[in-house]
Amino acid sequence: MADTDTTIETSTRLTPRYNAEGLIPAIAQDGASGAVLMLAWMNAEALRLTLETGMATYWSRSRQALWRKGETSGHGQKVMEVRLDCDQDAILLIVEQTGPACHTGARSCFYRRADAAGGLTRIEDAGEA
Amino acid sequence: MADTDTTIETSTRLTPRYNAEGLIPAIAQDGASGAVLMLAWMNAEALRLTLETGMATYWSRSRQALWRKGETSGHGQKVMEVRLDCDQDAILLIVEQTGPACHTGARSCFYRRADAAGGLTRIEDAGEA
Repeated sequence: MADTDTTIETSTRLTPRYNAEGLIPAIAQDGASGAVLMLAWMNAEALRLTLETGMATYWSRSRQALWRKGETSGHGQKVMEVRLDCDQDAILLIVEQTGPACHTGARSCFYRRADAAGGLTRIEDAGEA
Repeated sequence: MADTDTTIETSTRLTPRYNAEGLIPAIAQDGASGAVLMLAWMNAEALRLTLETGMATYWSRSRQALWRKGETSGHGQKVMEVRLDCDQDAILLIVEQTGPACHTGARSCFYRRADAAGGLTRIEDAGEA
């Protein structure tokens, strides 16, 4: 029987709700600065590896492969805490980020601000691109 | 012609990449405390309304309807900034949150910490549930 909403909200058991592709979105936040660094995806194996190794591991949707963040760039994420949201369909990692989180060289992937006119403006303290 | 990866990373034009259901994940972060409050979903209309009204508006997947955060609870989110990530498939809202962000009464939806043994522990400063 499926957990009720109330059960999943108060549960002390990790029962992530993966989407139809077996994935769950994972936010990485810098534990020191509080900056939201990126949003990526995990499958059950990526979450298991993240919890067991203490290094953030995602599922690359473009490469269809497990991806330990930093394995090629050196810009890894040491995981301080893994948090689940109320309905267990989103993950928040509190991390210690080595180097820039974004493959463009920006500190965070969220380096542009949108306006109502449909424009994007680079944020001043975004780091080099 | 589709934008190349490089174009979308450096573009000054808002061209969100919605998923097959026409949705994009949106993270809400408290502008004052830096806490990550929740992850929800937007369709193009929700994003347009968020940018135009300055109040966070999402797409409720369970109700299949637009959902202006706080319209029933009073716990709305005044949007200070809307950010897009490098490949424009995730949104970060910097918000001024009224009341608890989570429908359980917790300050953030991410009020539980996971461990490698499959347990979840409530975070001490999570607020009332």
